[in-house]
Amino acid sequence: MKPFIHDDFLLGNKTARRLYHEFSEGRPIIDFHCHLSPAMISDDRQFDNLGQIWLEGDHYKWRAMRTNGVRERYCTGDATPYEKFEKWAETVPALIGNPLYHWTHLELARYFDIYDLLSPVTARKVYDRASEMLRSMEFSTRSLIKKMKVEVICTTDDPSDNLEHHLKLKGSFEIPVLPTFRPDNVIKTDDPLKFIQYIGKLGEAAGKSIDSFESLVEVLDQRHEFFHQMGGRLSDHGLDRFYYADFDYEEVHKIFKKLLKGRGIDTEETEKYRTAIMLELCRMNHKRGWTQQFHVGAMRNNNSRMFRLMGPDTGWDSIGIAQDALKMSSFLNELDDTDQLSQTILYNLNPADNEMMVAMAGNFNDGSRPVKVQYGAAWWFLDQKTGMEKHLKDLSALGILSRFVGMVTDSRSFLSYPRHEYFRRIACNFVAEEVEKGTIPDDDGLLKPLIEGISYNNAREYFPFSK
Amino acid sequence: MKPFIHDDFLLGNKTARRLYHEFSEGRPIIDFHCHLSPAMISDDRQFDNLGQIWLEGDHYKWRAMRTNGVRERYCTGDATPYEKFEKWAETVPALIGNPLYHWTHLELARYFDIYDLLSPVTARKVYDRASEMLRSMEFSTRSLIKKMKVEVICTTDDPSDNLEHHLKLKGSFEIPVLPTFRPDNVIKTDDPLKFIQYIGKLGEAAGKSIDSFESLVEVLDQRHEFFHQMGGRLSDHGLDRFYYADFDYEEVHKIFKKLLKGRGIDTEETEKYRTAIMLELCRMNHKRGWTQQFHVGAMRNNNSRMFRLMGPDTGWDSIGIAQDALKMSSFLNELDDTDQLSQTILYNLNPADNEMMVAMAGNFNDGSRPVKVQYGAAWWFLDQKTGMEKHLKDLSALGILSRFVGMVTDSRSFLSYPRHEYFRRIACNFVAEEVEKGTIPDDDGLLKPLIEGISYNNAREYFPFSK
Amino acid sequence: MKPFIHDDFLLGNKTARRLYHEFSEGRPIIDFHCHLSPAMISDDRQFDNLGQIWLEGDHYKWRAMRTNGVRERYCTGDATPYEKFEKWAETVPALIGNPLYHWTHLELARYFDIYDLLSPVTARKVYDRASEMLRSMEFSTRSLIKKMKVEVICTTDDPSDNLEHHLKLKGSFEIPVLPTFRPDNVIKTDDPLKFIQYIGKLGEAAGKSIDSFESLVEVLDQRHEFFHQMGGRLSDHGLDRFYYADFDYEEVHKIFKKLLKGRGIDTEETEKYRTAIMLELCRMNHKRGWTQQFHVGAMRNNNSRMFRLMGPDTGWDSIGIAQDALKMSSFLNELDDTDQLSQTILYNLNPADNEMMVAMAGNFNDGSRPVKVQYGAAWWFLDQKTGMEKHLKDLSALGILSRFVGMVTDSRSFLSYPRHEYFRRIACNFVAEEVEKGTIPDDDGLLKPLIEGISYNNAREYFPFSK
Repeated sequence: MKPFIHDDFLLGNKTARRLYHEFSEGRPIIDFHCHLSPAMISDDRQFDNLGQIWLEGDHYKWRAMRTNGVRERYCTGDATPYEKFEKWAETVPALIGNPLYHWTHLELARYFDIYDLLSPVTARKVYDRASEMLRSMEFSTRSLIKKMKVEVICTTDDPSDNLEHHLKLKGSFEIPVLPTFRPDNVIKTDDPLKFIQYIGKLGEAAGKSIDSFESLVEVLDQRHEFFHQMGGRLSDHGLDRFYYADFDYEEVHKIFKKLLKGRGIDTEETEKYRTAIMLELCRMNHKRGWTQQFHVGAMRNNNSRMFRLMGPDTGWDSIGIAQDALKMSSFLNELDDTDQLSQTILYNLNPADNEMMVAMAGNFNDGSRPVKVQYGAAWWFLDQKTGMEKHLKDLSALGILSRFVGMVTDSRSFLSYPRHEYFRRIACNFVAEEVEKGTIPDDDGLLKPLIEGISYNNAREYFPFSK
Repeated sequence: MKPFIHDDFLLGNKTARRLYHEFSEGRPIIDFHCHLSPAMISDDRQFDNLGQIWLEGDHYKWRAMRTNGVRERYCTGDATPYEKFEKWAETVPALIGNPLYHWTHLELARYFDIYDLLSPVTARKVYDRASEMLRSMEFSTRSLIKKMKVEVICTTDDPSDNLEHHLKLKGSFEIPVLPTFRPDNVIKTDDPLKFIQYIGKLGEAAGKSIDSFESLVEVLDQRHEFFHQMGGRLSDHGLDRFYYADFDYEEVHKIFKKLLKGRGIDTEETEKYRTAIMLELCRMNHKRGWTQQFHVGAMRNNNSRMFRLMGPDTGWDSIGIAQDALKMSSFLNELDDTDQLSQTILYNLNPADNEMMVAMAGNFNDGSRPVKVQYGAAWWFLDQKTGMEKHLKDLSALGILSRFVGMVTDSRSFLSYPRHEYFRRIACNFVAEEVEKGTIPDDDGLLKPLIEGISYNNAREYFPFSK
Repeated sequence: MKPFIHDDFLLGNKTARRLYHEFSEGRPIIDFHCHLSPAMISDDRQFDNLGQIWLEGDHYKWRAMRTNGVRERYCTGDATPYEKFEKWAETVPALIGNPLYHWTHLELARYFDIYDLLSPVTARKVYDRASEMLRSMEFSTRSLIKKMKVEVICTTDDPSDNLEHHLKLKGSFEIPVLPTFRPDNVIKTDDPLKFIQYIGKLGEAAGKSIDSFESLVEVLDQRHEFFHQMGGRLSDHGLDRFYYADFDYEEVHKIFKKLLKGRGIDTEETEKYRTAIMLELCRMNHKRGWTQQFHVGAMRNNNSRMFRLMGPDTGWDSIGIAQDALKMSSFLNELDDTDQLSQTILYNLNPADNEMMVAMAGNFNDGSRPVKVQYGAAWWFLDQKTGMEKHLKDLSALGILSRFVGMVTDSRSFLSYPRHEYFRRIACNFVAEEVEKGTIPDDDGLLKPLIEGISYNNAREYFPFSK
């Protein structure tokens, strides 16, 4: 019997199989957005067992387990790695139809050559075999990365980070591990105390005290330059939404002073301050020729009871309301107005925004370079087959699919690179279905550049670091 | 020639046929949410003819007829049952593609063994045959229910209801007919006069005068307990949206006093009062171990001219704007914060909210029991093939399909139970297509529990009354 | 090898081919909404070459070229028609999956009998051949229209327009070219100076000075009557959204006086004024038995830098946020309340609103005539295969597909009539897939009126001018 994961997994017709195997399979990976730990790569960490590498930090899995009725002890609690793995193995059969079902079996197949379906019956065998392999040097973090033909990794880093691990990696690892500037903490003004602490930390990193909006911008610019010297060419901005308000710098200076004094600011002040600092950051991106990414639409830390117990990024986030198109347009327009809009990738989390966001990108493509502003890959909750298919459909109908820079890993897990294969199979199948319906010509002169482009070439050409 | 409704209706491949006929067909029905009249069941009402049972109260059909250009006289007016039926028979051929087309023919087939397509040509014949059958005792309301293997019925009832029909039914009907607590009237503050009248009625039902917010809560709790003693284990809340505002009880007391004096309250006061009373109600649900349902997103009574003529629930309602995710999250979080969030089912009416709502449910699944918070069936305007397929797709991609409690009838009609068959066929076909594409393993160890679960088993296990 | 555009293009099964070729192909076109220039039809303009007719005014193509990295010089700049065409030919292969790819090849096939795929390789040959044909009288604007069996054309015109070209065409062209009343300029209050200028121009057209809200309404009514006498039976309203506020006429008079004095008005005043004047306009539509169209949801002129260079309608517009369902309902209800709601077609641009808008239409169908209020064709960014398929799906699931008045050209281009063929093929294929799945009976008694209706008959019956 054919295993679930096989050569033609997800490839539903002859054209799909041809497109994938000829133009996509085995292409290298440009991992331009992920959350891998540079420390772990630098240390070339080994994992003791499959429970550890899979369940130690993966809030996707915890969330699915909890929904399936698994107690916290087996998610983030003090159960042993095998106990946790057992609960995961019980949960997996309930997940058919969910991307975790596909990811789990792709990861077993690609890293461990295991083709069993994970379930309580196969749990022990799968665990033992994979764990044994993990303990060999061929399964260290660096080996896992090399195995997947990763050409470059862009981690996600706070401006206050000293990038020591990136520095160590420079001489010692053949694959560039580059920092991405993610200054979200400078807009987190809700808790004045935490904000002041962060501003202090940021100043320290730059060896300069931040006592005004002006000095904040100077310090950020200095850190931006430091990231640039370390090879960084990307920023990333995880915002609930785009901010936009008219403001003058006088006002913003006063608002920032208020913040530094630990006083709260009101809704209007918040909007002004955030608009101002985001514009400054985006102008830095433009000045240094970077590409900026916006991940908008997440609603985080919805569960206070669990937040108190385990803090952020533990599986209690979800999808926010649709974006305010006018604010998004106004913000991007303000940058474009002085021709200071950098290459920009827009990612959304609420699929009700797909079409609006693809159309938005078009408003700022001035022909100066291809897809200067583009619509980014299906993200987080949408990073699954249904989400990707809608993404591909909407992008091709309202934008230009063939220029799409393609998949991001966006993961904390060292076993998540098969998500690129997953995307490529889905994308090849998507295009092939159209070819077989006759809506796309069956002409390799068109199909080869399309598939190679969205699999690998477009990202290589779009990002300065990968050329 | 094969009739339109046949054994394999909607089952598009071999796997679909196998899944439906082996694991779904003929399973009993747990009707955990409907609007059937307990009085009619108690009286074991007979219908004179097909015009009466189909057109006497069905605003779905009236709406379709009006859109097709049928005058009000033939919808809610004084035309004879046959005249109305004739207009309906003229409308049906125009409805191909609409769920009413499928429901009509499924109902003719399943109850009356009629396989003709309804049209002006077949109208007389269909009417006469079905009407004759309806006049036999085998077509009384109770017989119709038993014919469909219904195991339990949960009606929808106002807290002020004395549940006399439920009481009568207790000794006299083998199928439990349980009340559902639907206290929507306590949040309808827009018309102060009607509000006061309702509060009076509610107090009477409890034998206690309501003169403060505190006594309102006491009376509601007493009625809640009464429903509990009558076997009720469900509440239902039909809200345009979730309410949420910070408030203190002092304020709420004053607002309620204002209401009792017949004075209007402003937007902010309304939000506070509604938040406060909804939290109280949900805490009652938690205290008694009930499951609470939220049907959000309807925009009702849009047509004032028609409302003056015929009142509510006559076909002038529609879909409101997308939900405010933040308010929904905040409300549920407030309950969860003290661990007073009961089992909860979230139903939405605007499909732009599907993904947001599935993701929302995940925020409050703490592992204490499987799918404590879950995303409910496609509802009202979405209760049709396209809506269900999107629902199944989104639920499996962002949640756990195999834990879904499945279909609700949500109907006023005694002929609507084939909607469960309709859902089951669509669900089996949905899963089977994925199996044949290879995205779900073709393994009965996985498929049998999945299909049996969403057809029947999950509901039986989820609800306390059905165990 | 079969060319890309062939007899059965987009027709995926036997039923689709039968439906299209028997019940749809070759039916005449009722072009009830377009932006063709009446001056060009009146002049029977000839085009010199393919570059001119395709790229002189088509902001869809410019936008795609810019996104593909083509500089402005080759879009709206001073490059020669052939240089521009060359850049277009370079862009086309990148557009597979986009409607422009289909439109381009359908237009080449239907007007010029060219079946090559457009690319840099074929550019010269295609250009020369098509340009030569364009220079013959058989390719004048009038000939292009006649070739496509257009029965009536409704252009889109400002109330201040003297309709001189429509007048000239009356005696000289066998196909009626009728004006559509599009009074959007009377709600554009953001720039007081421009507003006053427009009001002046409008008054001049009527030979009457506008010095009060009352006289504004009188002038508009006079122009409305003039359009009526010229054969116009349609209005069109391009609004970002529906406006609605309570107001009294006293207030509105004052607000209008303020505007006439060149003073800005605040948000609340704007909402009141716009509500008031839109209600007046809609009452005129009702008084003269017209059909009114609402195109809602566009967000225009997002790029200020480009707006300064080239003005409106040059490719910098996009999709706005979802509609406010409550305002839409309230506005339509206010008209319906006095039974002054005219035949109405609702078009939306954000597909997150599809289901809401189909359901909205149902709120105001009172049975006085079939689909008095209806959901219009997929529009602008949604006027493509994916958008149309979702439109057809949502309309059939929530409304009545068989009553749909069907496709609009909505174009400035004299080569865009094949979009009707495109729609018809997609619609036939959509229905046929359902037939072959067994969800629609395979019965020509049902299918023939459905397909003929949405291809041509429904529009002929719905609009007074086409009878």
